[in-house]
Amino acid sequence: MPILTRVITVAERVVGVTTASAHCDVPCGVYDPAQARIEAESVMKIQEKYQDSDDEVFRQRCVLIKEQRADLVKHHLWVLWTDYFKEEHLQKWPNLHDLFWKATKLAGESKKSQDPAQGQQLLDAIEQIADIFWESKGEKRKAA
Amino acid sequence: MPILTRVITVAERVVGVTTASAHCDVPCGVYDPAQARIEAESVMKIQEKYQDSDDEVFRQRCVLIKEQRADLVKHHLWVLWTDYFKEEHLQKWPNLHDLFWKATKLAGESKKSQDPAQGQQLLDAIEQIADIFWESKGEKRKAA
Amino acid sequence: MPILTRVITVAERVVGVTTASAHCDVPCGVYDPAQARIEAESVMKIQEKYQDSDDEVFRQRCVLIKEQRADLVKHHLWVLWTDYFKEEHLQKWPNLHDLFWKATKLAGESKKSQDPAQGQQLLDAIEQIADIFWESKGEKRKAA
Amino acid sequence: MPILTRVITVAERVVGVTTASAHCDVPCGVYDPAQARIEAESVMKIQEKYQDSDDEVFRQRCVLIKEQRADLVKHHLWVLWTDYFKEEHLQKWPNLHDLFWKATKLAGESKKSQDPAQGQQLLDAIEQIADIFWESKGEKRKAA
Amino acid sequence: MPILTRVITVAERVVGVTTASAHCDVPCGVYDPAQARIEAESVMKIQEKYQDSDDEVFRQRCVLIKEQRADLVKHHLWVLWTDYFKEEHLQKWPNLHDLFWKATKLAGESKKSQDPAQGQQLLDAIEQIADIFWESKGEKRKAA
Amino acid sequence: MPILTRVITVAERVVGVTTASAHCDVPCGVYDPAQARIEAESVMKIQEKYQDSDDEVFRQRCVLIKEQRADLVKHHLWVLWTDYFKEEHLQKWPNLHDLFWKATKLAGESKKSQDPAQGQQLLDAIEQIADIFWESKGEKRKAA
Repeated sequence: MPILTRVITVAERVVGVTTASAHCDVPCGVYDPAQARIEAESVMKIQEKYQDSDDEVFRQRCVLIKEQRADLVKHHLWVLWTDYFKEEHLQKWPNLHDLFWKATKLAGESKKSQDPAQGQQLLDAIEQIADIFWESKGEKRKAA
Repeated sequence: MPILTRVITVAERVVGVTTASAHCDVPCGVYDPAQARIEAESVMKIQEKYQDSDDEVFRQRCVLIKEQRADLVKHHLWVLWTDYFKEEHLQKWPNLHDLFWKATKLAGESKKSQDPAQGQQLLDAIEQIADIFWESKGEKRKAA
Repeated sequence: MPILTRVITVAERVVGVTTASAHCDVPCGVYDPAQARIEAESVMKIQEKYQDSDDEVFRQRCVLIKEQRADLVKHHLWVLWTDYFKEEHLQKWPNLHDLFWKATKLAGESKKSQDPAQGQQLLDAIEQIADIFWESKGEKRKAA
Repeated sequence: MPILTRVITVAERVVGVTTASAHCDVPCGVYDPAQARIEAESVMKIQEKYQDSDDEVFRQRCVLIKEQRADLVKHHLWVLWTDYFKEEHLQKWPNLHDLFWKATKLAGESKKSQDPAQGQQLLDAIEQIADIFWESKGEKRKAA
Repeated sequence: MPILTRVITVAERVVGVTTASAHCDVPCGVYDPAQARIEAESVMKIQEKYQDSDDEVFRQRCVLIKEQRADLVKHHLWVLWTDYFKEEHLQKWPNLHDLFWKATKLAGESKKSQDPAQGQQLLDAIEQIADIFWESKGEKRKAA
Repeated sequence: MPILTRVITVAERVVGVTTASAHCDVPCGVYDPAQARIEAESVMKIQEKYQDSDDEVFRQRCVLIKEQRADLVKHHLWVLWTDYFKEEHLQKWPNLHDLFWKATKLAGESKKSQDPAQGQQLLDAIEQIADIFWESKGEKRKAA
């Protein structure tokens, strides 16, 4: 059995559908919207923790770290937009550009906002992109 | 329904088990071994592509990009080791330190190696860590 | 007319008082397409120098540094797209998303290409964006 | 005359066709003092915005982002000093070392200062360097 | 006299034992616990300066810069742990993993703490590691 | 005994003169030429290893990693020059600017050179700076 097939088989057995998402299309070629999502979850958690705390230094560190996490969200989304998606995907999802533009704007706004509902909007936007990503790969994300 | 619960519920419906892994324990507190795994998959794909190509510049870029990806694997593993795991986990998994040490060493070796079998060893080591991670969170990764 | 001369000629004709472009609209708010252009000029120069050299290590360093410069082009373009441009600009320039998408794809391709003509395409794409940028600010770039 | 207007006026008078400045001398070889200037304009704008705001988190983000922008100013100036300028330039402009030293010190001080007049001093120092840079290239920056 | 020997000889004459510590074992191969220590000294100094100041912006910058310095401490320690130490060292110092784990945790905690005594604990932990490092190299660090 | 005194005392006992060099003058305020030196030692070691190897990929990685190490040398030297040294030091060492300029140029040249003798020149230049640095602090670096 070729090596790559073995990876996916072992991975599927253990992790379920997750690993199946990390394919390779071109150059280094491994894309996964989970990278943006994980950082966005961090953003929203920080917004929650900011609300729950009244320690001045802790809140300052929340603002500081959130700034970095939001930058990572933007970066991962930009890479996905520019590097993964092709002309054929735009034919099928004509609003793709706009989805990415708005999602990255939401990531930018999350630097200013301490409201977890704002972080949730960001996560929802990433979910929309993840749906298209997986459909474009012809793989259905199944419930556990 | 509180915001956080809603996230997980929506996410679980759409993505299956994946999102459930991104919890928050302390400070910014979102950890997920998928971050290391995605970069390691990139490392192994690059090793495969290196083997399949005879273009000198392309192979050079493989070596160059693999160096960066392997650094990211090391970074994500180190963060998990230092920031997520606690004394109580060491009681339960006494080989935890050694697993991380060897996994990060494998990531370092992947910079030198153009053999996908080496990349597979790295992925296997990350899988072992991911298994412990999920067990430590009391969440079972289910097959799809 | 040699390629480099052409770049400068075109640039001089179109650009004029570049510095006037560095305004501030929102948050830190200083945007200037010159940031992407300078890095793209570096990319094209490296492609030329690669062609002119037969020193193995020098050419390797060209590939390596070009990789970094191209990443900076992508970054500066992404920032401009997400952070500077607003909904009203999209009404006026409906192809804005596509221009940025293609320009960043060209930057990605410049990592693979050692052909200065490819770098020139990237510079041309950035010029198109710069034209819209300056028009959106209601400032005419005058010839010297 | 308000500070910002003064910047632009001075800049327009002195700079003219900035873009013509992006030449290539050695290795990747594209140098342009505009890179330092753009970041310094960002520094001064942030100092202004800090003064105009009484939102605690916004002001904190000003301090945070200004720190990064000032670092970029320092970096771009250092690169120019070490990589572009040659022994022959020092013969002609014996105070070159001192100009760079003081300009980078001003960039360091801008991290501590919330006063736009301090940022203006930094911009003036960069202008002095830009004047020498352009003269050294035998190209006159013309007014528009 | 071969080049390397000359370096050490000159260095020893001038700096004492310090330079002798910077050897090369594998790949780029130069390791020195001083890298982690210098950043940790910076962390503790910032904690002291935070205590001595009542300027709000200055204290904010302390928190911000300490965050970065602590990250560097973690990075340098992780590199030492993964890249320098070998299986044979673990045989001799079975608590090595634990020392590194606790030292990097202390570095993480120093982000939250403004207490110089906490920074001192971090420095002490790095000293313990440095002792083992030098002993493993068969070189005694002598008092001046 | 105040905390800081205790640090130096413990450190002096164990490490000899090394720690005494890490003082604090301004802001975060810990400076040590060892940071530049350690990276420069890495540069020279890589040049040696390049000469000793005939493995193509290994040599490529040497060039790649040396590029990064040389950048770190430049960075640490620039920081020392701009942030540590004051006007009074220039009075006493009028060639200070020139020493730094030439040392950073040597670091830049080490990217191109695979000759350990070139790396040795870089180390010598850093030694000259370190001598001045320690003399400026009124501390003699003693032999062991």
